[in-house]
Amino acid sequence: MLEAKTERIKQDLEAMGKFTATPGAGMTRFSFTEEHRLTRDYIAARMKEAGLAVHEDSAGNLFGRREGAEAGAKAIMIGSHFDSVKSGGIFDGPAGVVMGLEVARILHEEGVKTRYPLEFAALIEEEGARFGGGLHGSRVMTGTVSREMLDDFKDRDGTTMAEAMSNFGLNPDDIASSVRPEGSLKAFIEMHIEQGPILENEGIELGLVKTIVGISQKEIEILGRADHAGTTPMEMRCNALTAAAKAVLFLDEAAKKAGGGTVGTVGRMEVYPGGTNIVPGRVFFTIDVRAAEMARIKQVTDAFETFLKELEKSGVEIKVTDRITVPPVDMSPEILDLFAAEAKKRGYSAKVMQSGAGHDAMIMASATAAGLLFVPSRGGRSHCPEEWTDYEEIKKGVDVVLGAVMALAEATI
Amino acid sequence: MLEAKTERIKQDLEAMGKFTATPGAGMTRFSFTEEHRLTRDYIAARMKEAGLAVHEDSAGNLFGRREGAEAGAKAIMIGSHFDSVKSGGIFDGPAGVVMGLEVARILHEEGVKTRYPLEFAALIEEEGARFGGGLHGSRVMTGTVSREMLDDFKDRDGTTMAEAMSNFGLNPDDIASSVRPEGSLKAFIEMHIEQGPILENEGIELGLVKTIVGISQKEIEILGRADHAGTTPMEMRCNALTAAAKAVLFLDEAAKKAGGGTVGTVGRMEVYPGGTNIVPGRVFFTIDVRAAEMARIKQVTDAFETFLKELEKSGVEIKVTDRITVPPVDMSPEILDLFAAEAKKRGYSAKVMQSGAGHDAMIMASATAAGLLFVPSRGGRSHCPEEWTDYEEIKKGVDVVLGAVMALAEATI
Repeated sequence: MLEAKTERIKQDLEAMGKFTATPGAGMTRFSFTEEHRLTRDYIAARMKEAGLAVHEDSAGNLFGRREGAEAGAKAIMIGSHFDSVKSGGIFDGPAGVVMGLEVARILHEEGVKTRYPLEFAALIEEEGARFGGGLHGSRVMTGTVSREMLDDFKDRDGTTMAEAMSNFGLNPDDIASSVRPEGSLKAFIEMHIEQGPILENEGIELGLVKTIVGISQKEIEILGRADHAGTTPMEMRCNALTAAAKAVLFLDEAAKKAGGGTVGTVGRMEVYPGGTNIVPGRVFFTIDVRAAEMARIKQVTDAFETFLKELEKSGVEIKVTDRITVPPVDMSPEILDLFAAEAKKRGYSAKVMQSGAGHDAMIMASATAAGLLFVPSRGGRSHCPEEWTDYEEIKKGVDVVLGAVMALAEATI
Repeated sequence: MLEAKTERIKQDLEAMGKFTATPGAGMTRFSFTEEHRLTRDYIAARMKEAGLAVHEDSAGNLFGRREGAEAGAKAIMIGSHFDSVKSGGIFDGPAGVVMGLEVARILHEEGVKTRYPLEFAALIEEEGARFGGGLHGSRVMTGTVSREMLDDFKDRDGTTMAEAMSNFGLNPDDIASSVRPEGSLKAFIEMHIEQGPILENEGIELGLVKTIVGISQKEIEILGRADHAGTTPMEMRCNALTAAAKAVLFLDEAAKKAGGGTVGTVGRMEVYPGGTNIVPGRVFFTIDVRAAEMARIKQVTDAFETFLKELEKSGVEIKVTDRITVPPVDMSPEILDLFAAEAKKRGYSAKVMQSGAGHDAMIMASATAAGLLFVPSRGGRSHCPEEWTDYEEIKKGVDVVLGAVMALAEATI
């Protein structure tokens, strides 16, 4: 049974982990920057060593292709993204890219032949940390990014994505060439850190993602009346913050009640005017509700909006603005079964679970069968310098993807 | 019966209302600025017209003195402050200064003689809007501001109060000369807008302040754990914001329960890290609790801190920092009785009440008998451009102070 080498995985991740714009303060690798270039060149060099034909598409996604035995057969794409959030960790994204490099190396070293061609992928701008969009590399491939949108995406300095691409040596006018023709892919396989505490808490080695949850995000504004905190009796107040506090607690309870892994969060809250001696007259906050079934999301958001209507009877005015609604996306049951069988064969514990975060596999699922495998995150942490997964744990994920890819690609040794 | 003239009150307030650093966006009159100078000069001119001997003390407080019949008798000080918050209204402070000008004018025109000398006062920096201290003019007079403190008070640009005073033509080294010798004052009488909704709501013309409430302000920091809002199950969270929401609602209830006009407010709240998709790991907020009796304040803050201890059992860590504790201050019952008698004589409705806001009279009460009279605030609003009191309502307040001052000063017509 072929096996990944932990030492090589560690070496790649540590090497790529050095290309950060914030040394000493975590991993900051924004798209179309010097850190992007250094990392891309590192990955391209490793791809070439593994005998792959390297190609950067017009969006900046990097691919290393390995031909199959059957001419014109659909390709299996394997990988993840290599951009990061600001001051994040070295695993979110790169763990899946290095998985691809290691799988490619093993197939190359062992002279494995496959019927289907393989494309090892290192995608850009999944986090949206520079341009705000997110999942950009996979969106380009699935044809949902137009030339005009490259002028609309702007970073904090006002540089458009099109300008940043040009400065990086890419041609934004050629963006359509990166769209993968319909039916050209047989599968997309991603490995990613869990970014949550479930695997670690349950002592399980691998997560077999069945569904990537749907998301509903809304912005809520509660308008009361700002009054002097000393001179306004309690019964004459129209306090926007006490109303908001009730809403925060209601959402928390409603998510728990919905069950099935439903989560509901108020992550942002701003209180105005914000003086110690002023009754808050306005509170802005966001809600983020996720579940594997749209019905559960709707159950929570409907109950929440009914609750807000009740709250308005106390005198506050409440505005609700829809921000994002993304339906849940199912991963391919066939690939999940391949992961499960391979894990069992190798004696690795695994559990079927949902992904609470969005991933490129979610976008790619609209174009092909998609599989997503999780490795544990220490303390459930991610998007911070403390983000950590033991290299030995990553190796187990690579082993499972390797086996699944060989089965799916009909490998012969 | 002598009577104030509404037209003159209106004229003074409107004239002073033009000296703002934010034209079109409310009244902004910070200390030691061009607006301060223009307003001071306007008041000084009116004082001189009313036959007063004008004097600016080393702190910047302005006085117009009218001698009494008895040599060396204690003086009765009458007035309020003339600085403002940023983008406030034209009444908070100046209504009481103009009250003094109008009283002085009437006594001058009518040739009224008094046994005790009168000092009409226009005090500075009550709001603390520029240097943060507040109640500064009265604090200087009562000897609680040292020369060193003038170097410690800094505005947003880093200018110390001592520097600002020097640039304004004052001598900070001479600050001690502004302290009023013990026993030199017979009384301090202030008129101020209510800054609350009680008089208007009850249809009452004047508020006879019995007590200025005590204040306890604390800073609370709740430390939970920032987690990904999508990948962290509800039961594995340590959410600082849901804990804070419970605290907000508890304080609100505890203040209502304490009764007797007790108020409790969370006015500032900051939520970190503040991402839509991140469970809040840290929340900072303030509490402000006020009541006319220290026992009620303590009842609320003790219950609140016990509640926080309970909250900590859910896993969050909570830090409490005391910020301000000011005991309640009683106004002079004799002056309150004089106000009440005068209001009755003139047929004005009046009610005994507490002041939920601090005023110079609170500081002056440590040095002499202090009286504080309220006129209604429309909608209870203050510290905003919409702050409003009808000039006719102010006139009624001036009438009552006039009568009380004549009685206290032993006037003879």
